[in-house]
Amino acid sequence: MSQCVLGLDYGTDSVRALLVDCHSGKEIANHVVYYPRWAKGLYCEPSKDQFRQHPQDYLDSLQQVVQGLWHKVPAGLAVTVVGLSFDTTGSTPVAVDANGTPLALLPEFAENPNAMFVLWKDHTAVQEADEITQAATNHSPNYLRFSGGIYSSEWYWAKVLHVLRQDAQVRNAAYSFVEHCDWMTAVVTGTTAPAEFRMGRCAAGHKLMWHDSWGGFPTDAFFQQLDPLLQGFASRLSPQTYTSDQCAGRLTPEWADRLGLPVGIAVGFGAFDCHMGAVAARVRPGVLTKVMGTSTCDITVAPITALTLQGVEQTVRGICGQVDGSVLPGLVGLEAGQSAFGDLYAWFKQLLLWPLHYVGTEAGDDEHDLALQPSQLEYLSDRVLSELSQHAAQLQPGQTGITALDWVNGRRTPDASQRVAMAISGLKMGSSAPQLFRALVEATAFGSRAITERFRQQGVPVDHIVVIGGISKKSPFVMQTCADIWQCSIDVLESEQSCALGAAIFAAVAAGIYPTVEQAQVVMASSVCQTYQPNPTHAATYNQLYEKYQQLGAFVDASVSSVQGQE
Amino acid sequence: MSQCVLGLDYGTDSVRALLVDCHSGKEIANHVVYYPRWAKGLYCEPSKDQFRQHPQDYLDSLQQVVQGLWHKVPAGLAVTVVGLSFDTTGSTPVAVDANGTPLALLPEFAENPNAMFVLWKDHTAVQEADEITQAATNHSPNYLRFSGGIYSSEWYWAKVLHVLRQDAQVRNAAYSFVEHCDWMTAVVTGTTAPAEFRMGRCAAGHKLMWHDSWGGFPTDAFFQQLDPLLQGFASRLSPQTYTSDQCAGRLTPEWADRLGLPVGIAVGFGAFDCHMGAVAARVRPGVLTKVMGTSTCDITVAPITALTLQGVEQTVRGICGQVDGSVLPGLVGLEAGQSAFGDLYAWFKQLLLWPLHYVGTEAGDDEHDLALQPSQLEYLSDRVLSELSQHAAQLQPGQTGITALDWVNGRRTPDASQRVAMAISGLKMGSSAPQLFRALVEATAFGSRAITERFRQQGVPVDHIVVIGGISKKSPFVMQTCADIWQCSIDVLESEQSCALGAAIFAAVAAGIYPTVEQAQVVMASSVCQTYQPNPTHAATYNQLYEKYQQLGAFVDASVSSVQGQE
Repeated sequence: MSQCVLGLDYGTDSVRALLVDCHSGKEIANHVVYYPRWAKGLYCEPSKDQFRQHPQDYLDSLQQVVQGLWHKVPAGLAVTVVGLSFDTTGSTPVAVDANGTPLALLPEFAENPNAMFVLWKDHTAVQEADEITQAATNHSPNYLRFSGGIYSSEWYWAKVLHVLRQDAQVRNAAYSFVEHCDWMTAVVTGTTAPAEFRMGRCAAGHKLMWHDSWGGFPTDAFFQQLDPLLQGFASRLSPQTYTSDQCAGRLTPEWADRLGLPVGIAVGFGAFDCHMGAVAARVRPGVLTKVMGTSTCDITVAPITALTLQGVEQTVRGICGQVDGSVLPGLVGLEAGQSAFGDLYAWFKQLLLWPLHYVGTEAGDDEHDLALQPSQLEYLSDRVLSELSQHAAQLQPGQTGITALDWVNGRRTPDASQRVAMAISGLKMGSSAPQLFRALVEATAFGSRAITERFRQQGVPVDHIVVIGGISKKSPFVMQTCADIWQCSIDVLESEQSCALGAAIFAAVAAGIYPTVEQAQVVMASSVCQTYQPNPTHAATYNQLYEKYQQLGAFVDASVSSVQGQE
Repeated sequence: MSQCVLGLDYGTDSVRALLVDCHSGKEIANHVVYYPRWAKGLYCEPSKDQFRQHPQDYLDSLQQVVQGLWHKVPAGLAVTVVGLSFDTTGSTPVAVDANGTPLALLPEFAENPNAMFVLWKDHTAVQEADEITQAATNHSPNYLRFSGGIYSSEWYWAKVLHVLRQDAQVRNAAYSFVEHCDWMTAVVTGTTAPAEFRMGRCAAGHKLMWHDSWGGFPTDAFFQQLDPLLQGFASRLSPQTYTSDQCAGRLTPEWADRLGLPVGIAVGFGAFDCHMGAVAARVRPGVLTKVMGTSTCDITVAPITALTLQGVEQTVRGICGQVDGSVLPGLVGLEAGQSAFGDLYAWFKQLLLWPLHYVGTEAGDDEHDLALQPSQLEYLSDRVLSELSQHAAQLQPGQTGITALDWVNGRRTPDASQRVAMAISGLKMGSSAPQLFRALVEATAFGSRAITERFRQQGVPVDHIVVIGGISKKSPFVMQTCADIWQCSIDVLESEQSCALGAAIFAAVAAGIYPTVEQAQVVMASSVCQTYQPNPTHAATYNQLYEKYQQLGAFVDASVSSVQGQE
């Protein structure tokens, strides 16, 4: 009888369940279920950056994904599940009523997007984020001291304030707002009621301005002054938060039945996906883990002693926060990331395919045989990035003469700004699509380098990088370029579901199978499937190109400042 | 019996003959012949910017184009030709022997590209141009004073020095070098022998550093010091030059026979195409004419008195020269231009079509039905720019948030630099192909505006713009954008062959039909077929966008200077 744990990973489009043997570390089975309402595009307005998810999507898909998982367990294998943990996207909060029920689960709010989870990438709250940045910066202590100095429209309080301002009905019914990762844990442990509800350290510290040094969340007075609509919300949150190695509660009979799991098994505190993914990738001081997808989420950890100077915790400027215990208990977790990585390549692909969509498919009657067939479009669309990579890989560093920035979605770190945009210089008549693509790949690698350099400048060592996610396995060209530009070796993580694996590791600790996360990692964390070594002969050229990247970036930053100055 | 004149226009790819009635101004017939060797790509290496044309191409096509013209004259119409004139590209020089024969017409040089005409767009002489700029700038008087301050690799002396350095055989055989426009005139008047050879003012003044104030060309000593290989070449050129209204000679019996023309008719002095095109477009003080093709050639004129301050002729910094009589006798002709106009759109089209060439057509055997057919590719290729224009025209000024430069071929004016390149800023995830295309169209219009603003700043008025060439008739979207950005009305010239028409106007004066060019213009110059008026509601937005264009340009200029500083 194998002792197993379950990692449940709520991503942007789907939830994944991963069953792992606690003692062998073997990944026994996994299953994925897509959110049905989200898949239909309901409740979203992409042109307004509004992205909402229905709580019923999360509940329905939870039952389906775990039930589906059992069908994937090899026949004859006897497993006993001893614990489970959740990771989710974030900050993804929802308004709940005085019973702790998300409003959209009540009949009168069932179709109201403001009563649903506000997904991490919803940017409707840009204005509110600016107001919070200003208020927090002017406050003593500066409540953004441990959050990189800038509050983001992607974060909890900005979204809360935006929803409260937008929707009187939600405003009147909202007792509190809860993060997705905490809510899932509360649901299956029967602790959604406000009196029993508890928060994990990760979301609270990185997105809610929670910090021990000011006794938890900013004061109610601070929020009232910001906007009277916020009155009471901070004081209704418990100032106590919990690291993910701790047991949040026990699986209720109802959910044990719905999921086919034993009643009363341990459920760990939830956290954000890339934080748990970092644990599966064996993050440790000096190691940066990087989830590489459309954007990146970069995580490292440091002992608080290493950050402390004359008794004061030093902060890393311009990152997404540093929180004691947000990744590994006993270490400060530091988060950063790029707003666009794969998205930059996707943008270029969309650009190149424009004629096919707008010219190619609409040939008139006389030209019927000229119209592009859907199968041809699909064929071209599927292959264009790999063909570009093949051609771009033939070029030498510096050969294109092109410099690009990676800020096509603005800049997350270092120094968050939604005002900056992408720029490209050095284009000549002979600048071909593969040359431009190579420059864009270099730009994403330079954007990453800017993050690691910021960490290093501010006293957080980065000696080694572990990458996680699709791009790291799909594109050797991108990875080799990264190694050459970062000038450090890069390990590619074996596991295809590192975030769910991280959740499983925490479940094993929460269930008491291992006394510490580190000990669980020895057995359960993922191995490395491939290592890229930097080519030292390219270092000097890339140092020069990085300087050009920084010069172009400084120009864009200065343009933005001068516009702001005029406003 | 109509009295007619013949304008012969040697373009980059073909020669055009235009027959015009001197007294009605009616364009009676025209004919085009493509250069056969050039059409095959012979003697050129585009990757090295080497573009050479064989003198035999010019001779053969001259006979063909005029013979072909007679077949186009309406049956029954009796015409008598009283004169002809040539315009050609330039600077396009060739090495000639002591008899004045282009070396490539001698059997031993027949296949040697260095013995052929070095076409205007040949950029093999970048190094030599830099040396000439430095030497001329250090000389007193500054021999570049009337040439915008910078010698170009497109110009005569740079090309001469490059060929002399490259090719010992040509070096030993070369007695002199002659410009295409002057050679054509000499050929048909039998004055190719050095003792009889005479130069037009246009090529000499704009490309050979000829100026009255220093008695003609720079001294032989100057050139010797630059490079001993140049010894004697300047002193073998007659310091006397001639405006195009003057008669250069009489048609020889041999050429009268070959062309089917009367012996002894007047042949005017030749000049460059856009200079003669400007005359057909009724250029006058305050009017800028603009030949818009892959690049632009901008011409205006000013009375010398308007340029003179305290007895000294003021020079316009950073343009392609100002030469008394180079356009209209008695006025200073000023030349400027953009290195890329249509070329910028062509670059973007090529970029977008990359996947079709490199992915679309190479589907494997299993995917045979997915491969793009040549007819589909042609269909897409033909329509992509017009579709982009249609979509881009729907956008409002400033809506894209994108700023672009037009320097994809470097910058001709203002302030020539082959080191600068194109740049684009303000790109976001939603930046689509039509948005980018709109930004590129705006960039070309801003590049033009920079030229007119330079003229105005330096005391040369530009109140009105007349445009000539394909783009001006093919793209109302481009033209309206130009009107809005230039903030002046734009006349589109009716004539489809304004350069040839300009040559015909000069032929009529050389033949004595009209005493002055101005009087010939009254009857013969082209009318306007369309006028674009600027939309004043867009002026403020475009002023802001132009400021951003200048800021981006200043960044690129500064980057180039800092690189040069490091070298």
